[in-house]
Amino acid sequence: MGGDHGISVTIPACIAFLKQTPDAELVLVGMQDQIVDQLKRLRAENHPRISIKNATEVVTMEDPLEIALRKKRDSSMRVAIEQVKSGEAQACVSAGNTGALMAISRYLLRTLPGVDRPAICAILPNQKGGPTYALDLGANVDCEAEHLHQFAIMGSLLFSAVEDVPNPRVGLLNVGTEEIKGNEVVKEAGELLKTEARKGSLNYLGNVEGNDLFEGTCDVVVCDGFVGNVTLKSVEGLGRFFRNVLVSELKSSPLNMLGALLARKALKSIRERLNPSRFNGASLLGLKGLVFKSHGSADAFAFEWAIRRAYDAVNSNVMLRISTMMAEFLQKSENGNDADGTAAQSEIQEQKSA
Amino acid sequence: MGGDHGISVTIPACIAFLKQTPDAELVLVGMQDQIVDQLKRLRAENHPRISIKNATEVVTMEDPLEIALRKKRDSSMRVAIEQVKSGEAQACVSAGNTGALMAISRYLLRTLPGVDRPAICAILPNQKGGPTYALDLGANVDCEAEHLHQFAIMGSLLFSAVEDVPNPRVGLLNVGTEEIKGNEVVKEAGELLKTEARKGSLNYLGNVEGNDLFEGTCDVVVCDGFVGNVTLKSVEGLGRFFRNVLVSELKSSPLNMLGALLARKALKSIRERLNPSRFNGASLLGLKGLVFKSHGSADAFAFEWAIRRAYDAVNSNVMLRISTMMAEFLQKSENGNDADGTAAQSEIQEQKSA
Repeated sequence: MGGDHGISVTIPACIAFLKQTPDAELVLVGMQDQIVDQLKRLRAENHPRISIKNATEVVTMEDPLEIALRKKRDSSMRVAIEQVKSGEAQACVSAGNTGALMAISRYLLRTLPGVDRPAICAILPNQKGGPTYALDLGANVDCEAEHLHQFAIMGSLLFSAVEDVPNPRVGLLNVGTEEIKGNEVVKEAGELLKTEARKGSLNYLGNVEGNDLFEGTCDVVVCDGFVGNVTLKSVEGLGRFFRNVLVSELKSSPLNMLGALLARKALKSIRERLNPSRFNGASLLGLKGLVFKSHGSADAFAFEWAIRRAYDAVNSNVMLRISTMMAEFLQKSENGNDADGTAAQSEIQEQKSA
Repeated sequence: MGGDHGISVTIPACIAFLKQTPDAELVLVGMQDQIVDQLKRLRAENHPRISIKNATEVVTMEDPLEIALRKKRDSSMRVAIEQVKSGEAQACVSAGNTGALMAISRYLLRTLPGVDRPAICAILPNQKGGPTYALDLGANVDCEAEHLHQFAIMGSLLFSAVEDVPNPRVGLLNVGTEEIKGNEVVKEAGELLKTEARKGSLNYLGNVEGNDLFEGTCDVVVCDGFVGNVTLKSVEGLGRFFRNVLVSELKSSPLNMLGALLARKALKSIRERLNPSRFNGASLLGLKGLVFKSHGSADAFAFEWAIRRAYDAVNSNVMLRISTMMAEFLQKSENGNDADGTAAQSEIQEQKSA
């Protein structure tokens, strides 16, 4: 029911997704009457792989968390996440209110052991043709160093599980690459990440800068939710600016239009490579369940990508892999701490004997 | 002497600038021998509007502030800023170490009354064809609300003075437009700016988001130096990515190349509208003197723009206008505070009598 356009976008996206994905099934959660009407309009009311789960309320973009979480107990958002909790669905996709989605997910699904705060992790395209994972993109606007530390671990595990790459390269977003750069929180986080690197539990590259988001210099970029959100919206804004300039200039004269017609394959390829729709669908990471957030302004094509991201995560068994890896990581780091503790104790012993 | 390319870029830029600007004079500050050699190479050793001021040292990009400020007392950077202080030059332009430039400028020139910390203010192009001023872009990575408050005032005064627009629209960069959004510092800054708006001393629009940087929805965008620096470098990175994709796709086949040839006017216009060189030259704002920072990676064309920005600021009497406006602003806000103080006192009196 969510997003700027509601079911007029989400349901066509579902039908397109199912056409491309013969082994997937979708549960549409929301106001049953409206959903049925929309399905009829699209001649899909008897789709064999669509079922409907009724919900009598909708969380709006303006609802405060309090309302979304405590009052609207039969919202489509909440019922959808309950499907994940009960195991009836393997993942939830929503284009609705991000804060509410995070709060309800956290309340119902709980966080994984070792995670204080879930984070929003999105995927950006980079110049080397690969993906760059970036987190947190807005769930946590006030972060301490320990939170950035946890985001780094989670991001690394997610990249490793989804992209099937061992030891992803993790960078800490900062105002310069030198260690002395940055505010106090980031400097402290850098120390924590260096410790992980020394233990061999993280492939930490050190500080990275804004441009590294697009250069493919690292696989995972870690920042607090304030910086991440502002940066994401800035680059989206610049992307729209580019597209508008491109279109308006190429339509500005018959000769330019002819040129654009001849070069249409190149222009199509440019549009595709830079199309933000292909990168729609951010993970709510650190929960005991898969929840994906689509951009509120997504069109059907973009929303289909968010569903596909959820499907791929289910298919590559991301949830089990991340919880296993996270448990191993905690185990290792406890052992690491024990080892440190033992070392420190023997040092004290030695000093005492001396 | 500064920047990635030193005098092989800055001196050609100076000569090109002087050719375009018959009433300007330039003082080249740095290692005299090297400067003379470079001028000879460009057949400009007797240029009537170029003089040389010798300096025996150079601040490198790696020099810690301590070294730049206390040890290298005869650096080109320091000597150049001394020219501004003594009045021999009306503005200083440097492509060197940003931190050092800010520290030396602040030490030698001092800040304007009412300014705790100078800020770096850059100009971004927006979709409406106008400029958007953004500050701070990296001078202050740990900011309190009061600093953001001062940046808003300074940015508004600068925009007003340079663009000759009364009451520029000022926005506070945040993760959402609603007042409840953001981290603690930003929320508190929002309150301070609302108070200014109520007093009529600032045309404050409220919170803006990353995309507003490019949409022309406001004239001045205020943020802390951490967020500003990361955002600026991110959008620069995306800009390079975009240009690389454009070039590589349009060269990918003879037909695409022919199309690009026909549409070359449009492509030239796209390049010009999106060329970051045109926006090179950030102001170090809040000082008792004009100092401009060019991007370290600037080519001669971009460095020429930074010199032009300094020239325009001198020509439109920005320094005098800003100090006058800042003094008036302080006067007004003291009166405002007095009024508040009186109001508060009479309230206390009333309570006592009651």
